[in-house]
Amino acid sequence: MTQNIYDDEEFFAGYSRLPRSLEGLDGAPEWPALQALLPDLRGRRVLDLGCGFGWFCRWARNQGAVHIEGIDVSEKMLARARATTADATINYIRADLERLALPASSFDVVYSSLALHYIVDLERLLSKVRQTLVQNGSLVFSVEHPIFTAPALPGWSSDGAGRKAWPISGYLDEGPRSTDWLTKGVIKHHRTLATYINLLLGVGFTLTHIEEWGPSAQQIRARPQLEIEHERPAFLLVAARR
Amino acid sequence: MTQNIYDDEEFFAGYSRLPRSLEGLDGAPEWPALQALLPDLRGRRVLDLGCGFGWFCRWARNQGAVHIEGIDVSEKMLARARATTADATINYIRADLERLALPASSFDVVYSSLALHYIVDLERLLSKVRQTLVQNGSLVFSVEHPIFTAPALPGWSSDGAGRKAWPISGYLDEGPRSTDWLTKGVIKHHRTLATYINLLLGVGFTLTHIEEWGPSAQQIRARPQLEIEHERPAFLLVAARR
Repeated sequence: MTQNIYDDEEFFAGYSRLPRSLEGLDGAPEWPALQALLPDLRGRRVLDLGCGFGWFCRWARNQGAVHIEGIDVSEKMLARARATTADATINYIRADLERLALPASSFDVVYSSLALHYIVDLERLLSKVRQTLVQNGSLVFSVEHPIFTAPALPGWSSDGAGRKAWPISGYLDEGPRSTDWLTKGVIKHHRTLATYINLLLGVGFTLTHIEEWGPSAQQIRARPQLEIEHERPAFLLVAARR
Repeated sequence: MTQNIYDDEEFFAGYSRLPRSLEGLDGAPEWPALQALLPDLRGRRVLDLGCGFGWFCRWARNQGAVHIEGIDVSEKMLARARATTADATINYIRADLERLALPASSFDVVYSSLALHYIVDLERLLSKVRQTLVQNGSLVFSVEHPIFTAPALPGWSSDGAGRKAWPISGYLDEGPRSTDWLTKGVIKHHRTLATYINLLLGVGFTLTHIEEWGPSAQQIRARPQLEIEHERPAFLLVAARR
């Protein structure tokens, strides 16, 4: 089973204070880019893998989705998701994404935000996702970018001229990375960008778009601390079609 | 027009001494991986964009290709290609890839090794390539990896523990990079990996495989100086289908 770090008390307390937890989707700077990859959700059946507090599930409902399932392994997150959702269209289900079983051809859209880099057996999960999508159904997901997850000790350095740089090492060594983020020993699984793409193609998806996310000029004006995120992409956004 | 650096005397002299110039395809460590992306060439019509000394064109002929065109902007390289080729199946043509015109549906396979990162208007070229391929025809190419081309001052640094790292900056700033490689002021065009992929998808290709090249364990045993290339990918290899 994937490490269930979101039920760790210290991690959960820290995560709950992040802008993306307090403000929802609008607190995540990559959300406008991820949203742009989604098809029209009106009348669609939507599955959210790693739904957390349920922000996306509720947004999908507001967009007109008619059946929404949010899956997460964290009891704490699902408890809050349920407490802040009053809509029978949305179902929250506790499950380990490593062992997930999904009904065939049952969803039009599968979405996942910053969850798949925790998964050990991503090929299995992507294969299940493909099966649960209808023909021409959409998969849209974000993960931490491989440039971000590669280094054993991630962080910024400065070059001689004082320009910030992100030193990469171990990019081609795929596997777990233990980092200290909100709490000690958070385990993420580093994969190359090629592996993400080839796993998708290998299980039968057609790739339609990828994006290596950085802040827009407008976002940098509004939040100058985002400027450094232009030096290297923090997130990888992917859209594919069954 | 793209900078024709290969006709610069100092550059040409330096390039001519590289293992990939002296030993041909086997002198390029990424060649086995690139070769693995190619379809069977028997009976095929093959176009090589940036053919240089013609090593690939001659190899394609040995694989059974029946019509081969090699295009390059460098007079010096084409002169040597012609001097070392005695086969009417192979035509070498001098042309600027920025302004290339290609006949419709005339090739089964288009190949390009380490040439497309010199191109300013890559979308135009990829669109022409798609048109010149037959339905289900293959495009296989390599470029310097965006991680490699991103920094204004590319090079290795060391972390505190003495581990080599490749500092990335400016990854999301696409455009020309002037670097000193074999001679001063070689202009390459940095694009993100997402841009390479999205340009391909945008002009109508279907992506079939990508690879972020690093040396195999066997290659590192044979040439220990390749080990550092495992820290970050030097080359991006792409296979797509019309």
